[in-house]
Amino acid sequence: MIKASIVSIGNEILSGQTVDTNAAYLSDRLLTICMPVASSYTVADDIDLIVRSLKLAGDEADVVLATGGLGPTDDDLTRQAFAKLLGVQLQLQDDLLQKIQDFFASRNSKMPDKCKIQAHMPAGAKVLANNLGTAPGIITWKDETVFVAMPGVPSEMKQMFEESVLPELKKLTAGQAVVIQKLKCFGTGESNIAELLGNLLERGRNPLINCTAENGTITLHIIATAKDKDKAQQMVENSEKLLRNKLGKLVYGTGEQTLAEVVGKKLIQQKKTIAIVESCTGGNLSKLLTDVPGASQYFSHGWVTYSNSAKTDEVGVPSDLIVEHGAVSSQVAEAMARGALKRARTDFAVSITGIAGPTGGSEQKPVGLVYISVCSDNKCDTERFIFSHGRNSMRCRAAKTALNMLRLRCKFD
Amino acid sequence: MIKASIVSIGNEILSGQTVDTNAAYLSDRLLTICMPVASSYTVADDIDLIVRSLKLAGDEADVVLATGGLGPTDDDLTRQAFAKLLGVQLQLQDDLLQKIQDFFASRNSKMPDKCKIQAHMPAGAKVLANNLGTAPGIITWKDETVFVAMPGVPSEMKQMFEESVLPELKKLTAGQAVVIQKLKCFGTGESNIAELLGNLLERGRNPLINCTAENGTITLHIIATAKDKDKAQQMVENSEKLLRNKLGKLVYGTGEQTLAEVVGKKLIQQKKTIAIVESCTGGNLSKLLTDVPGASQYFSHGWVTYSNSAKTDEVGVPSDLIVEHGAVSSQVAEAMARGALKRARTDFAVSITGIAGPTGGSEQKPVGLVYISVCSDNKCDTERFIFSHGRNSMRCRAAKTALNMLRLRCKFD
Repeated sequence: MIKASIVSIGNEILSGQTVDTNAAYLSDRLLTICMPVASSYTVADDIDLIVRSLKLAGDEADVVLATGGLGPTDDDLTRQAFAKLLGVQLQLQDDLLQKIQDFFASRNSKMPDKCKIQAHMPAGAKVLANNLGTAPGIITWKDETVFVAMPGVPSEMKQMFEESVLPELKKLTAGQAVVIQKLKCFGTGESNIAELLGNLLERGRNPLINCTAENGTITLHIIATAKDKDKAQQMVENSEKLLRNKLGKLVYGTGEQTLAEVVGKKLIQQKKTIAIVESCTGGNLSKLLTDVPGASQYFSHGWVTYSNSAKTDEVGVPSDLIVEHGAVSSQVAEAMARGALKRARTDFAVSITGIAGPTGGSEQKPVGLVYISVCSDNKCDTERFIFSHGRNSMRCRAAKTALNMLRLRCKFD
Repeated sequence: MIKASIVSIGNEILSGQTVDTNAAYLSDRLLTICMPVASSYTVADDIDLIVRSLKLAGDEADVVLATGGLGPTDDDLTRQAFAKLLGVQLQLQDDLLQKIQDFFASRNSKMPDKCKIQAHMPAGAKVLANNLGTAPGIITWKDETVFVAMPGVPSEMKQMFEESVLPELKKLTAGQAVVIQKLKCFGTGESNIAELLGNLLERGRNPLINCTAENGTITLHIIATAKDKDKAQQMVENSEKLLRNKLGKLVYGTGEQTLAEVVGKKLIQQKKTIAIVESCTGGNLSKLLTDVPGASQYFSHGWVTYSNSAKTDEVGVPSDLIVEHGAVSSQVAEAMARGALKRARTDFAVSITGIAGPTGGSEQKPVGLVYISVCSDNKCDTERFIFSHGRNSMRCRAAKTALNMLRLRCKFD
């Protein structure tokens, strides 16, 4: 199998001032042409280190994709490193120089002298056009390995990769196809999913199944490789069926779907409306719901009843009830939802009350304790949860969990 | 100079399914203790590749920080790789097992069998506690190089790094000093900031000044290097003075401060309270405000009046006014804020109404149009904005802009 390696060049990545999104983008795109990334290096703006990394990457892979270090400043050394790797000199290319001068002229400015270096190329290397900036890229072959240099600016890199690099690389993997599907799950932890799936998650399988987790959402990536697209598609479909069988209601969607999108779609289908009243999550649930375009079709009223008086004033929670059970209790959660239902005249209301921390917890009611209630006229489901991972994560998980409860009540009474 | 190298472990990073934010976080933090990152590797879940990368990293650096691969599944191989690197066996540690069982018990669930592997450690290595999850970390020494393994989950990695790893590493770099200060700005674009600062942003300076932008918030990183902390501190302070002089009110804070924190602090100082009523931002503003622990001291009531009827029902916007001017108008924005003020009996109320898109825009009222009103009893400031960059970014920027208007009204009448 043809493999790639990525070399990201630049002090700003190593110093943590810039998060390297290029490597993830390239990996993702390479997978679609059946070219897995075997390794990835990040190196400083130092010519010897760059050459060393290119060599190491070339030892491991058939295709080496470098990004960064093609700018006009003194610390942009990728051109020189490529020349050194190939054992050739840099040569000024007049047509490139003209192009860079035109670039500045079209912006009514003069080319800074510094930019002249960008018209130099390792002798014999092929130039990759940059339609968004002044830094041309490089593609070259050495001992059957392809070496590519692209700019570090993500927009310039992406355009160059899609227009000039990807078509070249596709030729290398002709006759193979990859299909990827993502299954989105919610309602249990990663270790439980792993237990349910057993050896399906083993390395080296085809389809390969990867599992990632973010704030309670588990994503299963199904990656099938085959001689042709139809076959790979069939493999993904079989795998998806198997996973859905094992995971049941834990699977809520596919691709990039969010819980809020899935819930919103169901509400539209069933012509139902919803109101939200939240305390500890302070707007997180309404935010998630309205992240989805068109949420106004089912969502009209939301309250952030952060104080006890707001719970009483706005959604009519009896103050006695708060005194008796505390604001963080199943009784108050249910009263909040019932109050919102009445006030907004919606089909459903969802409430959240809890202790986000870092202070305000007690032994009986620790930080992370949350009650969520999902109510319609004839039924209230109220559940108790303990969330960890700190204030922000806890608030996000509580809001997602409320959406998940709503999803599981999917036939909506 | 003591150098570090980072090894990120996981197929999900190489396949582009996950962007590696851990490496950037670690680089950023290591810079504060004067420990530059010389190189960084990303490797697949393959024991031989992991061991090879750890060795390569160890050749280049005095400190090797690995993240990922400590989970409970079969593809989590960092424990085994560390054992192989050190030439020792994995040993079950009863106290770790107990801790993991307790973790599940506190959540009223039984430890899945798979998790038992997380209680195994390379013989002789020191365990790093994980207070947020079940995966303990590892710190160990080999041939004068420090090797550290931390979980891949960012929240768990960060806590472990700050609590257990950073204090150890600090001992290695005593005698050199780096001081970093971040200035946070809001109210204009990155290119305007660059224009205002001119050559202060040039590379190679000391202090070095880097500029990054995220959803309207501009962060200026001032990084000074010197023989001792006092000198570096002095350099940073001089630089900060200069920048503040040039940027004036655009600077809202320092370090990791958010607009919501700065506003919250002012409200507490001046014993003022605030209510929020939002339409297009659908909870974003309340969320930002309540992201700050202790927000209940000044925030009690929030409304998400997503429909016209909610605007009328909940905060008393006259329906005539909506008919006459439209829900997205300065008149309705002001009426929303005045209504919230009256209903919540707070010192201030902030309202947002706008068109988040992607549909619903017209020539006169395009997608991205937002009115924000900041009111107290005796004064309403209402402003009109056009935000771009799509629904999510627009909603986030509108909420931040509301906080910024509140900040600039800082003496609060």
